[in-house]
Amino acid sequence: MNTLKDRIICDGYVIGDDILKVDSFINHQVDTKLLDELGAYFASKFEGVTKILTIEASGIAFGVGVASHFGYVPLVFAKKSKSKILDEKNLYTTVVDSFTKGTTNTVSVDKRFLTKEDRCLIVDDFMAEGNAALGLIDLCNQAGTTVVGVAIVIEKGFQGGRKRVEEKGIRVESAAIVDHFEDGKPILR
Amino acid sequence: MNTLKDRIICDGYVIGDDILKVDSFINHQVDTKLLDELGAYFASKFEGVTKILTIEASGIAFGVGVASHFGYVPLVFAKKSKSKILDEKNLYTTVVDSFTKGTTNTVSVDKRFLTKEDRCLIVDDFMAEGNAALGLIDLCNQAGTTVVGVAIVIEKGFQGGRKRVEEKGIRVESAAIVDHFEDGKPILR
Repeated sequence: MNTLKDRIICDGYVIGDDILKVDSFINHQVDTKLLDELGAYFASKFEGVTKILTIEASGIAFGVGVASHFGYVPLVFAKKSKSKILDEKNLYTTVVDSFTKGTTNTVSVDKRFLTKEDRCLIVDDFMAEGNAALGLIDLCNQAGTTVVGVAIVIEKGFQGGRKRVEEKGIRVESAAIVDHFEDGKPILR
Repeated sequence: MNTLKDRIICDGYVIGDDILKVDSFINHQVDTKLLDELGAYFASKFEGVTKILTIEASGIAFGVGVASHFGYVPLVFAKKSKSKILDEKNLYTTVVDSFTKGTTNTVSVDKRFLTKEDRCLIVDDFMAEGNAALGLIDLCNQAGTTVVGVAIVIEKGFQGGRKRVEEKGIRVESAAIVDHFEDGKPILR
């Protein structure tokens, strides 16, 4: 998706060895026009979607952009809680490690919002090792919800997330794939 | 805003004495069509807005809906951190108490994303005592950013938030105002 790729080249920057910062247009300040274009892009890639599922916080904006292009289907965002004390009888819960932040979160979705009838598209701003996507797939599996696919804004192609998700039989589409970093710059595929 | 009011009456419910849950259409599962209608509603109330400012996580979806109706202006979401160890020289920070959660968060915005040239509309899904709105106003004041107003999906009219914000000379618009709770149900104005 060329608009995004150009933007990553212009405005993305690398911190340390492997953190790509896109905070001026994706996950702190959000370019809402780009978001809308990303929504249109992914609506052309998947069909039969009745619900969008993401994880708070930075997947939410992208989720709204995508949902609007699937005829304004509902967006569900899994909630993070460091606490293990959740009222588990009403929740589907799973554990997700964050590559970027080095943290582990219990994430949950109220059982009312994932059903056997739903056909979910899982979306997120980033995919590295695929932990968030795998956690959301796990929540869908607990609910008996069909996963139509996984839509990612920026995939870090060298961290294995795609392979782990595809091994579950789930299709992955990304708007941009970072092949590697070179001299502190992202090199895109 | 009648669509929203009807929805609160149908699908909202009260927990304990004063927590209104709207998690089936606002802040866990999001009705993205309603979000779009809310965006159009607030675009008719304010003008001259160049940026939308909210706070993660549940303000983000509403923020996207509003931004799209102001010609896709950028959306900035302030980030929460329980840690006080932030790189403060690049951030505007303030402290916000959460009424609902009984927690205190340090929230911050990168200095690149709030400027003297910006005319910000502050948005959030709820206003109770107004702490989040006042915190975001404080961030704008630190940056010299003009605050055009505060747009709220659901205002709890009995908790004083509006008065505290208006005392700062800032206009508040809400799509629905809960006057009080009666027999476990929200009574709207």
